[in-house]
Amino acid sequence: MTTDTDTTLVPFRQTVEQWMRHFQKWLYTTLETTDGSATFQPDYWQHHSGGGGETRVIQNGNILEKGGVNFSAVWGRMDERAAKQLLMPDPNYFATGVSVVQHPRSPRVPISHMNVRYFEAGNGEAWFGGGLDLTPIYVDVKQARWFHEQIAEVCQRHNPTYYQRFKDWADEYFFLTHRQETRGVGGIFFDRLTVGKDGDRDELFAFVQDVGEVYGRTYSELMRRNAELPYGDDEVKWQMIRRSRYAEFNLAIDRGTKFGLETSGRTESILMSLPPRCEWHYNMQPAPGTPEAETQQWLKKGVNWLDNSPTSLD
Amino acid sequence: MTTDTDTTLVPFRQTVEQWMRHFQKWLYTTLETTDGSATFQPDYWQHHSGGGGETRVIQNGNILEKGGVNFSAVWGRMDERAAKQLLMPDPNYFATGVSVVQHPRSPRVPISHMNVRYFEAGNGEAWFGGGLDLTPIYVDVKQARWFHEQIAEVCQRHNPTYYQRFKDWADEYFFLTHRQETRGVGGIFFDRLTVGKDGDRDELFAFVQDVGEVYGRTYSELMRRNAELPYGDDEVKWQMIRRSRYAEFNLAIDRGTKFGLETSGRTESILMSLPPRCEWHYNMQPAPGTPEAETQQWLKKGVNWLDNSPTSLD
Repeated sequence: MTTDTDTTLVPFRQTVEQWMRHFQKWLYTTLETTDGSATFQPDYWQHHSGGGGETRVIQNGNILEKGGVNFSAVWGRMDERAAKQLLMPDPNYFATGVSVVQHPRSPRVPISHMNVRYFEAGNGEAWFGGGLDLTPIYVDVKQARWFHEQIAEVCQRHNPTYYQRFKDWADEYFFLTHRQETRGVGGIFFDRLTVGKDGDRDELFAFVQDVGEVYGRTYSELMRRNAELPYGDDEVKWQMIRRSRYAEFNLAIDRGTKFGLETSGRTESILMSLPPRCEWHYNMQPAPGTPEAETQQWLKKGVNWLDNSPTSLD
Repeated sequence: MTTDTDTTLVPFRQTVEQWMRHFQKWLYTTLETTDGSATFQPDYWQHHSGGGGETRVIQNGNILEKGGVNFSAVWGRMDERAAKQLLMPDPNYFATGVSVVQHPRSPRVPISHMNVRYFEAGNGEAWFGGGLDLTPIYVDVKQARWFHEQIAEVCQRHNPTYYQRFKDWADEYFFLTHRQETRGVGGIFFDRLTVGKDGDRDELFAFVQDVGEVYGRTYSELMRRNAELPYGDDEVKWQMIRRSRYAEFNLAIDRGTKFGLETSGRTESILMSLPPRCEWHYNMQPAPGTPEAETQQWLKKGVNWLDNSPTSLD
């Protein structure tokens, strides 16, 4: 496929891959600066069928206890089962993307996730996917609104239907059926924005670039604003519970994780998304009226986070 | 199905269910006595389509940091997808079983798992399944041999082919493909021992009863022998890593967990198997020559744990 694809796509593929590399570097540099202590250490790896990636992991930072900013560009031929699961129109593929999860030390700083990706199938079809979502240990309503507003504004610049469609999609995707709760306050999720069908390639690419940018900008801001807030043992205990839910989602539900593990992706890069430490207590329910119970109430689909007037964080 | 099944099966079903209830009580009482401190607290629950269960969970015991001994007897009609996944000859089913996982506090005491189960399909087919396996944080070769010998002896009493077949099956089943390692030193695993085809019902039932008994007996012994051994921070750190592998297996791989979560089983009963606390460190590899590296070497398929002469634990 690296040689026999429609040649008009090849330069575009390179453009996207190049941007993904630059975006990775911009993002981990931004997060490092905000963290102010540890740096994202590199690991370079190769994919068995072609290409590879650069995994960047931070551990024991000032704000970030553990996090990753991973770039990959891989190609090859999927086996039948994987191709079928992914609804691939052709088993030959090229895929490039950046994947991010951050687990902060303080329960006052939310866990965050972002992914942008670009796929080409051997039959010439090409599409973008991605998203970002926020998992506060304690929901700060003002910050959740602000986060959604920033995303909505980016979506609005590209397509007036994007925010609501992709916000609903995130509500469905980041949902733990067995807990009947969302992973956090959501964000957006989209897949298979197909070149030609859902927009021309430059339009779709510009949107995905903005999705990456809004993540770096909003999450740095939330890190800065919350990192110095006080907390105690009770808050850490609740953080350990919320983190174990995060692990449940990533290991048992997340399609990206499943796909990576089942197709012999690099395990340590895929599982960098798991929390540095977490706890499972049997049947732990927050007592009514506590801040923990209040947070739990927000973990549902269909919350409208947009107000009539823009939210100020100050 | 509760009314229209071959009536000769109904009394047997009740016999099995009754034994499962008694076995649950015998087992948690045995483990409580060995633990010497906390008790297994009950939760009674009902299944949406019929039946229910008794979940017994211990937390913060003397030896057991967290563990469960769960009984269930449920029936109903599976949806198409679940029936297909389970290769059910008929969507109507009755299932009863006891499921056990123990997470000890000390890294010197292995994690353990045991399950015995009995299924009936609406077309009259009935079968047993089960198994047990041991996950030492540090492999004690003598104890691993002894554990396998005790199981082999039980198998031998029932069928000379059982131990090797079911030991190999456990090696395949309790395997983390994405880590290329077994969950621990294994044990046995078997499924679909079909009444009529693989033995008469009383023979198969007697085997399953002995599987339950050998678990309670051997695991109590391993608790007693290891609970007082000294350990330090390094051993606990390694324990947290091994526990996170256990969580990976149960959430991402174990078919029983998947099936339970996807068919609206009781989440807290299913996920009692998860460790009380665990840690994920990026790309943690034990240094060569350490006890941790030595343990890692044993985490592979095909180890022959049976020696020519019986192992004494003393």
